Amino acid sequence: MADNVALPSATRQAGDLRVNGARLLSRLGALAEIGAIDGGGCARLALTDDDRAGRDLVVTWMQDLGLDVRIDAIGNVIATWGRAGRSPVMVGSHIDTVRTGGRYDGNLGVLAGLELVETVIESGLQPARPLAVAFFTNEEGSRFSPDMLGSLTYAGGLAIEDALDHVAIDGARLGDELLRIGYVGPHPCPGPAPFAYVELHIEQGPVLEAEGIEIGVVEGVQGISWQQLTIEGQANHAGTTPMSMRHDAGFAAAAVTTFARQLALELGPPQVATVGSLQLHPDLVNVVAAQARLTVDLRNTDDALLRDAEQRLATFLQELADEEGVQISARPLARFAPVAFDDRVVGLVEATARRLGHSTRRLPSGAGHDAQMLARVCPSGMVFVPSVKGISHNPAEYTQPDDLVAGANVLLQVVLALAEDA
Amino acid sequence: MADNVALPSATRQAGDLRVNGARLLSRLGALAEIGAIDGGGCARLALTDDDRAGRDLVVTWMQDLGLDVRIDAIGNVIATWGRAGRSPVMVGSHIDTVRTGGRYDGNLGVLAGLELVETVIESGLQPARPLAVAFFTNEEGSRFSPDMLGSLTYAGGLAIEDALDHVAIDGARLGDELLRIGYVGPHPCPGPAPFAYVELHIEQGPVLEAEGIEIGVVEGVQGISWQQLTIEGQANHAGTTPMSMRHDAGFAAAAVTTFARQLALELGPPQVATVGSLQLHPDLVNVVAAQARLTVDLRNTDDALLRDAEQRLATFLQELADEEGVQISARPLARFAPVAFDDRVVGLVEATARRLGHSTRRLPSGAGHDAQMLARVCPSGMVFVPSVKGISHNPAEYTQPDDLVAGANVLLQVVLALAEDA
Repeated sequence: MADNVALPSATRQAGDLRVNGARLLSRLGALAEIGAIDGGGCARLALTDDDRAGRDLVVTWMQDLGLDVRIDAIGNVIATWGRAGRSPVMVGSHIDTVRTGGRYDGNLGVLAGLELVETVIESGLQPARPLAVAFFTNEEGSRFSPDMLGSLTYAGGLAIEDALDHVAIDGARLGDELLRIGYVGPHPCPGPAPFAYVELHIEQGPVLEAEGIEIGVVEGVQGISWQQLTIEGQANHAGTTPMSMRHDAGFAAAAVTTFARQLALELGPPQVATVGSLQLHPDLVNVVAAQARLTVDLRNTDDALLRDAEQRLATFLQELADEEGVQISARPLARFAPVAFDDRVVGLVEATARRLGHSTRRLPSGAGHDAQMLARVCPSGMVFVPSVKGISHNPAEYTQPDDLVAGANVLLQVVLALAEDA
Repeated sequence: MADNVALPSATRQAGDLRVNGARLLSRLGALAEIGAIDGGGCARLALTDDDRAGRDLVVTWMQDLGLDVRIDAIGNVIATWGRAGRSPVMVGSHIDTVRTGGRYDGNLGVLAGLELVETVIESGLQPARPLAVAFFTNEEGSRFSPDMLGSLTYAGGLAIEDALDHVAIDGARLGDELLRIGYVGPHPCPGPAPFAYVELHIEQGPVLEAEGIEIGVVEGVQGISWQQLTIEGQANHAGTTPMSMRHDAGFAAAAVTTFARQLALELGPPQVATVGSLQLHPDLVNVVAAQARLTVDLRNTDDALLRDAEQRLATFLQELADEEGVQISARPLARFAPVAFDDRVVGLVEATARRLGHSTRRLPSGAGHDAQMLARVCPSGMVFVPSVKGISHNPAEYTQPDDLVAGANVLLQVVLALAEDA
């Protein structure tokens, strides 16, 4: 750490401020006990009982700090502290997880936010702008589509009445589940635009660790295209139906899956393509599948390339349907164009991380994040810390404690700088 | 129908005997109402409540005819009528179905047997040997592995204590389910060898209809190889994990599925290969699958070719595991060598069908049948009737009523001939 420039005393004090790392790690551990699963991970699918328990814990912590906790109509929780009258600098993320989630994805951004507010309160500093810590509903999209639904609605990208009508993979209506767990709030959604939004998150990919970098400076977020395909073939006897006479929905689903891999390899990085969900019906050893349902997840930082990938897939589906004699219908589940973060915020994250002595690298995010929704309404940016082996959405997800604390300190310093901005 | 040869009066009367087609069709309709599903099909998975209801109905019909109904230790039901003291001529099949089954598969062989016995009783004929109608437990193998479990156990191919310990796809133990539905019988299994066994069945394939043939003379049954594969990869984020760093169990499962298709096409008919069952875990749109479980069904009439197919698959799995960095384990679910039916029974089926004025064709069965198990202990054979469009294991499974009745009459005449055999 080097800070040799002569600064006014309050500024120097602010620049020296550091979070309480042990307290941050302790809160991460406590939250991870809710919905804990084998291997050290978490399963807190959005608006389940476990999500409620996680929400209740974080809200209690917010209230204990004396923050002004507000819940909006889609269940986003925003806790504000500080001098009123100006729009706040907001940090945050989400605390819902995938079914086999880790303990850092999302949680880090929320709890680092809470930690930095507590640190500022303890320091006696009075930033010019209020600070806000948010967690947004259903970021993962594992239970309700699309992902980032809460922040999308907050930013005005989805009408609240539509959002409440979304139906979960288990058949439940979002509005009903929100009511059931007690998180329908009185505050309107879309919500007020913050002055700026910064999100700390684990990388969830292998790049930072592989290159030995401590802090990732996120320039933007890959575009995401999610589709659900339904393939209708013909159920038939697996022993008596010649190969030439089959209309095999299972084979067609497999052909889509291998095509997706081939497509990503042909287009090259950063294009990725994944078939993560696939069900056959009737799903029996000796019956040619009558129906397959599967998802295709395509991502690219370049929207033209992403559209090209979507088009190539559509062409392949048409050819496959003709060749196998099956019907294939595609339903869009989510479509987000790539997002570029605000140059000034990106530059501030980079300069701050370097000032704190960290190695940095600019990179795009391969995952979607709430920050890309807030970027619609205010200058936004993200800070990444390394994920060991790039593992995420997996109980084995891990980030070194030193990296977690380093990320929280970069976030703190970025927020303090923004909070003094006119 | 031509029967110009001078025969003794009793023989001529027997040769003229025909089943009551309306009664057969009525019983088929009544049984199809149990476990009925949309589209006219049936779901009576082995040893479920619906299977019990189907069993109860058929047993009631057997008792109403005054047959001697015996249930054995594996729940096979055998109803005998006629002159005691000699081993019976047995007909039969099964009444369990796949989850999306039709109304003829199995049921036809059992109810045509019941019908022919009723016809003989009404005629006043007293065949030299008793007649037996059987239905065997868990022929389909959709709930318990292997398929044809009941007839395999009857024929001594599987120890009764082992059979009772088999576990269903829903976790239930076979012996417990048998007890639950009240079909643990006092008669020992393996059971006594009949004098001969003949099974009437729908073809479940397209050959007879395509060639305009009325009666299929079944020469034997294809060999069957069923395996369950478990693929262990690594759960990871679908957006942030470069394609080159994935260990994707879902992709590997798809690669096995497309390989199976390619394998069958390369080896050519009668080789068939099917992946009918496939599950991913965690099965989410944005998570690279950590685990896949799938089945591979390989069949061929030539055991050497079937072994070749199994070997090629094993080699592919090894290469795939290395390439994708996943672990693949294979568990055999069922393995039956091809079966050749008894020449005399095959010849008798052919001659009888022709005597009744039907066009015939010899063909192998692509599906497994209880007859192949009975062939271990007595001369056995099968009669096929056409399946419209070859559709089976599907509610749309259909056979023309005339064909159903023609098949039952061939079965009747074959049985009467065998029952006079010294």
